[in-house]
Order: sequence, then structure tokens, then C-alpha cells
Amino acid sequence: MPTVIHIFLEKISIMAKLLNVDKALDNILAAITPLPSELVTLDQARGRILAETIISPLHLPPFPNSSMDGYAVRAEDVINATRKTPITLRLALDIPAGSTARYTLAPGETARIMTGAPMPDGADAVIPVEDTNGTWDNAALPETVQIYKEVQPGDYVRPIGENIYAGQSLYEPGVSLRAMDIGLLASLGLRTVSVIRQPRVVILGSGDELMEPGLPLAHGQIYDSNSYMLAALVEESGAEAIRLPVAKDTLADIRAVFQTALQHKPDMMISSAGVSVGAADFTRTILEELGQVNFWRINLRPGKPLAFGQVAGIPFFGLPGNPVSAFVTFDVLVRPALLKMAQRPDDAVYAKATVAEKMTSDGRRSYIRVNTTQTKKGLEARSTGTQSSGALLSIVTADALMIIPEDMTVVEQGTKLRVKLLKINPNTGK
Amino acid sequence: MPTVIHIFLEKISIMAKLLNVDKALDNILAAITPLPSELVTLDQARGRILAETIISPLHLPPFPNSSMDGYAVRAEDVINATRKTPITLRLALDIPAGSTARYTLAPGETARIMTGAPMPDGADAVIPVEDTNGTWDNAALPETVQIYKEVQPGDYVRPIGENIYAGQSLYEPGVSLRAMDIGLLASLGLRTVSVIRQPRVVILGSGDELMEPGLPLAHGQIYDSNSYMLAALVEESGAEAIRLPVAKDTLADIRAVFQTALQHKPDMMISSAGVSVGAADFTRTILEELGQVNFWRINLRPGKPLAFGQVAGIPFFGLPGNPVSAFVTFDVLVRPALLKMAQRPDDAVYAKATVAEKMTSDGRRSYIRVNTTQTKKGLEARSTGTQSSGALLSIVTADALMIIPEDMTVVEQGTKLRVKLLKINPNTGK
Repeated sequence: MPTVIHIFLEKISIMAKLLNVDKALDNILAAITPLPSELVTLDQARGRILAETIISPLHLPPFPNSSMDGYAVRAEDVINATRKTPITLRLALDIPAGSTARYTLAPGETARIMTGAPMPDGADAVIPVEDTNGTWDNAALPETVQIYKEVQPGDYVRPIGENIYAGQSLYEPGVSLRAMDIGLLASLGLRTVSVIRQPRVVILGSGDELMEPGLPLAHGQIYDSNSYMLAALVEESGAEAIRLPVAKDTLADIRAVFQTALQHKPDMMISSAGVSVGAADFTRTILEELGQVNFWRINLRPGKPLAFGQVAGIPFFGLPGNPVSAFVTFDVLVRPALLKMAQRPDDAVYAKATVAEKMTSDGRRSYIRVNTTQTKKGLEARSTGTQSSGALLSIVTADALMIIPEDMTVVEQGTKLRVKLLKINPNTGK
Repeated sequence: MPTVIHIFLEKISIMAKLLNVDKALDNILAAITPLPSELVTLDQARGRILAETIISPLHLPPFPNSSMDGYAVRAEDVINATRKTPITLRLALDIPAGSTARYTLAPGETARIMTGAPMPDGADAVIPVEDTNGTWDNAALPETVQIYKEVQPGDYVRPIGENIYAGQSLYEPGVSLRAMDIGLLASLGLRTVSVIRQPRVVILGSGDELMEPGLPLAHGQIYDSNSYMLAALVEESGAEAIRLPVAKDTLADIRAVFQTALQHKPDMMISSAGVSVGAADFTRTILEELGQVNFWRINLRPGKPLAFGQVAGIPFFGLPGNPVSAFVTFDVLVRPALLKMAQRPDDAVYAKATVAEKMTSDGRRSYIRVNTTQTKKGLEARSTGTQSSGALLSIVTADALMIIPEDMTVVEQGTKLRVKLLKINPNTGK
């Protein structure tokens, strides 16, 4: 199906020469402003992009604590203690983990202490319970404990700040927060963290021939699939998607869908409709009314036609209507714009693969749906068969997109080319 | 910090021998029942696990359509047409994309047709517009069109079912749905899809020494980090996490937090508290009151102590309190249980790495925090330094966990071991 944009291009032939893919991307990225930060609680921070430098406000551990269940002592009190010549100390107190009481150990005193519990002031070492005559049942504590072993100051004590010191720089902005990072930020006592706001993207379109899934198709109609796919692609890029139902091909309906889109205060708008000639004209009318959009023919296969500009000041993409063209154009040109907006690192996985069979190309930069197999010589790539830009199945059954560079019209067997992996897990292929 | 479980084990010494990690996992998985399916709309289906076989209910395309802007003809009508000896056909109608009108082309007739528009009945080929005297502006249509070229039946026609045929089997259960799959399902007209219900996991715990992040710490207290980390780990495993605030160390509070947990109707409960002796007793009392939980000492480093069983019939894990132990135990023993429950394929990425420096181990299966570098000979792994199980920073700064097998106490430099990658992107290391 042609799109608004496709039709514009075929009909008004704005540019004879195809626009280089990298040049198009440069133009797009130059128009994209990174989003500001917002504060979120740690419960909401997973997967978000850190927007601040994190410097530890405290020592971790925040107090010296015992690394053993045992008895806290002053090391100087137990010099020369052995099992045969034990030294007897007065048991002054019991310190369970979580004890918040402070106590200063006087000479000749000891305290029973649990792993992780705070060392009493004055104590500088811990004697493991097995090197004493102490016990760990909950019976009444004895008045004295015999120590069977001498220790060095610091033995079995985790010093304050051993893991992290107050003032230590831990994170720079730009990190995508994982579970372990959330845990670390919590251990610093942070309730909220500054992260980049997630882009809010509205997906809209029009087309009388596009039917909402679940409703019956009339002759000549197909189901709207692009709006669903694009919304999911937006989410896979770490952004929020708002998918509007496809509008009818009337000026009023197309204007209404753009107005609805703007009410969502989006950071980006993506149009994807397949449409009739009339709708193309209506959409063009609305785009001229509301914004400034350029129509490009890009040196890209699949996906030549693309509209990019702004509508009411908001970045706007008009993507090709063929599903595979929409997929590739999103991946090559829209996704980098979303990542820049979100200041998000690209987590796509690329590899080099050997072309298993000779291929031809038309001189555009081409994204070929391939399946890869791991051989002794490395990854080998083979076309999935049909490369029809209407056949979404060709991309569903592919595990990678192989990139044939511009101006390469013949790709000999054995050529090594870059592939972008589509499979979730390089180990299992699933 | 020791946990409930740790204390149980140290104090009541249920098992002298350490339980093999794989045996523990077998025991756990045997107690886990996969969750049933639920219907979700396509907007909610991304990332979910398909629970049904998808067989196409229709042909795609659903009708024969033109692959060019041109003129639909009966091929037999234009035999021997050339630019010098054109054949003139009566222009019967205009078929824009999305046209739902049906028309049967009579002999000698043609129809102007747009790419993607339905072929009229009777027509079997399309003549590209450049091989006619037709035009594509929106002026009034002429009464006749001259055809300059003959065609074969089927030329420039996409047949019905070319991409997918009705009855074609497309997906088996167990697939994690990506954007392209959502698009394909929409193109089939599906409004909803059957997916495995996401596990709902409650994270709970108790500990007077654990302070909620954002509030001031008293001497002897630390911030609760495990509940935040575990909730995020649960989400990273594709499940829903409900994190309850840490309870105080009283029988009433611990009973209340378990009761609150059960009110959420969880599919799994995970306890993670570091606690005092009293709290350990209270928790044990509640566990005995509500369920049946086993306390294991697992041949795993870090992470030896683990409780597993059921509380009110719901799978219950009691994890070690040390953050790194909790992380590793979750990864090795809880995550596989969640994946089984969700019927979700494991997307963890493993590799082989060469040990850069001699290491020692204690004979337990050990998960060593390492950093990897890509060398000419492959991946090389080096310890991040401290392997203290309290130092979450050691795992935050690691990019992989290196797995030292059971009974290997010395790991010579150059040994190749399995590593689990923690970094998001193997290309960029970010």
C-alpha cells in the first residue's frame, strides 16, 4: 500500500536525487532535542536513564560491624590468650543485628555480637564464638566469657566505609538503571532519583481501507497493522506509545486525529497510514496548516519515502505504509531520534556475517531479511526468501537484517557484511 | 547481615551436608506450576509469552491487488500491443487504494488502479502507467486509454494469499512477542491474543535495623536495599513485583506483613530481610503457622542459605540478606522458577572466558564478579576485586559473573570457564 508520503512523492516528485541515509539521519538528529529530567521513586526507576551524578551521601557500611557471630573485644585485653591460658572478660551486653544502642566497652569487658551488628565503641576486634566458651542459645547470658585466642585490632571487623565512602562518585548520567543499580541506590538511602523523561509518542494515521483488527473486512480492505507494530517498536525503544485509531479519509477526520494527537502533548508524532489519493491530499493540507514537513526520497531499501519535520513544533515522522518498509525506516531513522531524545544508549546488537549466496541489490542501502547460522568460520547469513516489503512474515521469520551498503549492486558469496541481530538471545536464537 | 534463614541455619544446623545447586533447583522447579493463560488486547501483548497456536484466519493479501500504479487489464485483450501499434481500451472505472466497490471488467475494458488497490474481477494483469497514454493527475478521466505493451496474466498482480494463506500455521505457543509479531497478529485481524499470565510476586521482609530509603538512619541501622533490588529483578524476569515495606521485628508485624502479602493473591513470595534473632524466631513461627518451608544450605557461593517451600500454598523463597548473595541466589534459583511459571524462554547470555589470573575457591559452585575484555584469543575475565557478599558495588561494576564449578578449589590462569554476561550490550559494553 502506498502511504500519504509515498503518494506525495510519486506525484509531486520533489527531489530527483535520493537522499543519503546518513545525511537524512543527521538532518533528523539535528532537529531532536534531548528531553529534560524528572524525579522518580526507586520503584519506578528500573530501565530509566540516570540524569544525575550519584555521589554517596554516606559510608557503607555506615558503622563498623562484626563479620562473625562472636565477642567484641579490645585486642589489647586478650594478648596471649590461648585455650590453655584463657582470659576472662566481663560480658557487658548483647548486641543483636539492628541494635541501635551505643555502648563504650571498658577495659576488661566484652559484648556478644551478631554478624552485621554495630561494634561497641572501644572494641576493635571480634573473637569468633568457637574461640570462646560462649554459646549462642537464647539462655540467660553468663556474667563472664573466657577468650581462647588473641586477635589483631581489626580482625573480623568490617570498617565503616569499607564498601563505599561518603563522597565517593558512583554513577555518571546516561546509565540505564538495572536491578543491581536500584539496589545500590537504595542502600545509599536515596528515595528518588533524577532520570530522563521518557519520550511520549503518538502513533496516528488515516485510511478508509484500513480496518481495526477484530472487525469484519470489506472487499478491498486490510487490517491496520502498522499502528500496532509502531506502538510496540516505540515501547521497545524505551518510550511511551499512545496509539490512536486510524482516521477516516476526510479532511475533518484527519484534522481531528491530529488535534487529538496534540492533546496528548507528545514529544514525537509518527504517522503510518496507507491511504487513498484523497487522504494524501487531506493529510498534506493538515500538515501545511499545522507545521512544516519535508518529503524525502531516501537511498534506503526498503523504505525510500519518508516525511520528517514538525507539526505544532513537535517532531513528526511520516513512514512508508508497507509494513517492512515501516519497520526498517523506524529502525534506521526514528529509533535513533528516540534514543537521542531519551539520551538512551543503543542496545542493538550487530555482528559480521558471511553472505552464503550471491545477492544483488539496486544500489540503495539495503536491509535484507536473513537467517544466520553459526559455522566454524563465524556467522553465515542467508536470505529468508521473499524480500517483499509488504510481507511482514519475512521479517518475523528472519533473525537478522543484513546491511548491503550503498552502491553495492552485486554481493558475491563469501562477502562479509554487517548484520543487526533481531533475535532476543544470541545463545538460544529465541 | 545475616537473614532469618541464615540465622536458622547457623543456629539449628538442620543439614550438615551442603545441597548441590542443581539438586536444589530440581527440587524448586518440581514445586512450580506453570501459570494459565489470559486474553490480552494486542496493545498489551508486547513482551508477553504466546499461549496459543496462531493459524491465519485469512489470506494475506486478502484480495488480489496491483503492485504498480497503472491500468488493470485482461491480458488477452492486449496481446501484441506496442507503442507503435497501441491497443485502445475503454476506461471503465478508477480504483484507488481502499476502494471497496466490486466491478467485473468486460472484454475491451480497463480500470485505472493504484498500488495496493483491489484488482477488478475479470482483470488478470496490470500495465504500468508509463506503458500507456494515461496520466496520474486528478483531472477528469478520459474515456479510453492506449496500451503500449502486452503482458502475461499475473504481471504486476499480487495474488490473494501471496504472503500468508488462510489456514497457514504461523506461531506455536512459547514465543515472546516482539513488535513485528504484534504487527503480524494485527494484520491477521486479531483483536486479542492468548498469553501466559505474568507471575505476581510479593517481596516482603522484616528487620528493625532496616530503614526505608529517604528517612534518617539511626546508629546501627542500614537502608533496605534488597526489597528494591529484588522487585527490580522480578520485573527484569518478566514478572510483576509488589514490594511491601519492611516490617518491624515483632510477631504481630511479621504476621501482618505475611497477611498483607497474601491479600495480593501472589503467585510467589520472596523474603529478603536481614533480621535480629528475635525476628528470626517470629518469622519461623509465622512460617510454621502458615505453611511448610524447608531450610537448605546450598553448595553455592555467595548465597549458601536458602529457604524454599510454600506459605498458604504459594511458593515461598527466603533469600540471604547479603545483597550479593541475594542477587546470585535469585539469579540461580528464583529466576528459573519464575521463568518456568511464566513459560518464558531464558534470555540470559552466556559465553566462555579465559581466567586472566589464578584464583582459588572453597569448593562450592562460585559466582565470581568479573570484568571481561575481548582479546584476539577471545573473552578474558578478571575479578573486579572485592568479592565481599555485602558489597553490591562489586556486582554493579562487574560486567559478568564467572562460574567456578563445584569442587574446583584452584583455578589456574588460562582456564576457560562459563560466564554469564551482565552488561546490556555485548557490542558497547554498556
